[in-house]
Amino acid sequence: MNEKIQMQLNCPMPKFDFDMITLGHGSGGLLTHRLLESGVFNILKNDFLNQQHDGASFQLSGNLAFSTDSYVVSPIFFPGGNIGDLAINGTVNDLAMCGAEAKYLSLGFIIEEGFLMDEFWRILVSIKNAADAANIKIVTGDTKVVERGKGDKLFINTSGIGIIHQKANIHHKNIKAGDVIVVSGTVASHGIAIMSLRKGLEFETSIESDTTNLNHTVLSLIEQFGNNIKFLRDPTRGGVASVLNEIAELTQLGFSLDQKSIPISEQVEGACEMLGLDPLYVANEGLFIAVVAKEIATEFLLFLQKDINGTGAAIIGEVTEENAGKVILKSRIGGRRFVNYLTGEQLPRIC
Amino acid sequence: MNEKIQMQLNCPMPKFDFDMITLGHGSGGLLTHRLLESGVFNILKNDFLNQQHDGASFQLSGNLAFSTDSYVVSPIFFPGGNIGDLAINGTVNDLAMCGAEAKYLSLGFIIEEGFLMDEFWRILVSIKNAADAANIKIVTGDTKVVERGKGDKLFINTSGIGIIHQKANIHHKNIKAGDVIVVSGTVASHGIAIMSLRKGLEFETSIESDTTNLNHTVLSLIEQFGNNIKFLRDPTRGGVASVLNEIAELTQLGFSLDQKSIPISEQVEGACEMLGLDPLYVANEGLFIAVVAKEIATEFLLFLQKDINGTGAAIIGEVTEENAGKVILKSRIGGRRFVNYLTGEQLPRIC
Repeated sequence: MNEKIQMQLNCPMPKFDFDMITLGHGSGGLLTHRLLESGVFNILKNDFLNQQHDGASFQLSGNLAFSTDSYVVSPIFFPGGNIGDLAINGTVNDLAMCGAEAKYLSLGFIIEEGFLMDEFWRILVSIKNAADAANIKIVTGDTKVVERGKGDKLFINTSGIGIIHQKANIHHKNIKAGDVIVVSGTVASHGIAIMSLRKGLEFETSIESDTTNLNHTVLSLIEQFGNNIKFLRDPTRGGVASVLNEIAELTQLGFSLDQKSIPISEQVEGACEMLGLDPLYVANEGLFIAVVAKEIATEFLLFLQKDINGTGAAIIGEVTEENAGKVILKSRIGGRRFVNYLTGEQLPRIC
Repeated sequence: MNEKIQMQLNCPMPKFDFDMITLGHGSGGLLTHRLLESGVFNILKNDFLNQQHDGASFQLSGNLAFSTDSYVVSPIFFPGGNIGDLAINGTVNDLAMCGAEAKYLSLGFIIEEGFLMDEFWRILVSIKNAADAANIKIVTGDTKVVERGKGDKLFINTSGIGIIHQKANIHHKNIKAGDVIVVSGTVASHGIAIMSLRKGLEFETSIESDTTNLNHTVLSLIEQFGNNIKFLRDPTRGGVASVLNEIAELTQLGFSLDQKSIPISEQVEGACEMLGLDPLYVANEGLFIAVVAKEIATEFLLFLQKDINGTGAAIIGEVTEENAGKVILKSRIGGRRFVNYLTGEQLPRIC
């Protein structure tokens, strides 16, 4: 089983002859060159990135997965992480949800003029640590700078390529009535961690984002349970409710949840109540939902619970013929209600 | 030889129940779903994107190339193109410069709240047309929305995977003294087209951006000349001068240019003079530089000149032992000067 790797790259910032990013650093000329040579390439260096070409090249064969995400989270530093490790973990996890082991990532920065080198460096270190922990290589990148007021400190895009595990067969078409819905841990902590910092919402909490890589966890599950794992998805933006609605719509099956079995920490639940939020709509960044065959559900759960990323895992519901295309929740007091897509925007820029 | 494919997708905008993008369209909930279902997925649909998973999956084997770029060009519409086709062509071309045929692209949007659907739709149509012309598929994507004043209308990231041509061996280590430097057409038109629209610089011109895909052109050259093509690079940001400086530094060889042989249109040259710009630093988006073996240089040039993207191609210089690590220009009147990296920023957000 996967043990969370605690790598603490101890990497003091080199001396730069500038303390903030200027438009010139996005020019493609001398300043871009200096920034990359003295900072980015230095910390992220590997044989691929060192080619310093317009793209990276490598040998790869088989069933591949390819995913992209842009990260615009605000604030860029938050309890439990920052936009850097979030951007690495997010794309690694999207690939894991395809049953793939992430191998190579690209890294694109859009920086607002005036962004502090000190903050940029801290984020680069987090990126390096997250990449090492997930065992992926950043092989190609891009840096753009926009004028003050035309961006917001830092946006990051990561795209990734992974190799799909030979035993994986993740497709919504495999889901059938009777399958069991598992969640890998407690819900809603990423969203609440971000909200605790937002203007007008600030509250004292020790809640941290759950951002982490899930690839080691997911790959070991696939190795063990193969195509009895029907579907995987990480409930980021829009939360558990939106993801299940998407699957319900795609499969035209019913997704029946039992509220009392949905794991949530006391603190997160308290914060949700205070903010008037349904935790099923709150974003997660180190959590996944699995739809698995009934026959293996208990064994799957026990296996997952032994993993560092699955200690809080639980069976939260089942797939049904009735309520086709809908998500239905049996509440703690026994009532039933439909759970719809998130309408409007709970909180912008959660990831 | 490759003829430029003129596909004009005739695609009227569907009826949306909103005329601009709101924060809710980035929520991951109902509005995101509606935007994608009725707009993005509709126009870009293909078997891969239709999987609607966190990532796309496909079979691919061999030597692959992987590249990423974020596009922050301002204004987003300009003579000869817009940010949409620029984003497709740019990444297709970066892969072509690795000797690779682009196959699959990802597409990430960062949209500023309030962006008009009408403009978004026009850009989507351009993306579709550019993707078809380059013969690539957009297989996965992401849409984020940031608050007004935290972005600037639209930023796009594209990342791409391509298959490296079996005969390709593009690496700066292959370059040696005596090799010949070829440029595929007239320089500086993209940068000047953008500048003509910038506040404080506006001037009347019929100069258009040269944005186009170069993959068909480059692949047919590689098929014909194999490893006699030593190196390829598209001189985008920073222009011809910055690209040649990078190669000079990597190879520790001299790059000697003959100013009178560098192709430039009269109009672009006039605009550069008016703006006080050296065209060697101005961005291009449909141009490439090739370093080729002397033995095939003439044949290479004639072959390239028959291609729609190479009609203006010219031999502009040679690689030398002397002036190691430097770019040197023989001016029209016979003097010689070093051409350095672009220092500072000529004009931000050119691509």
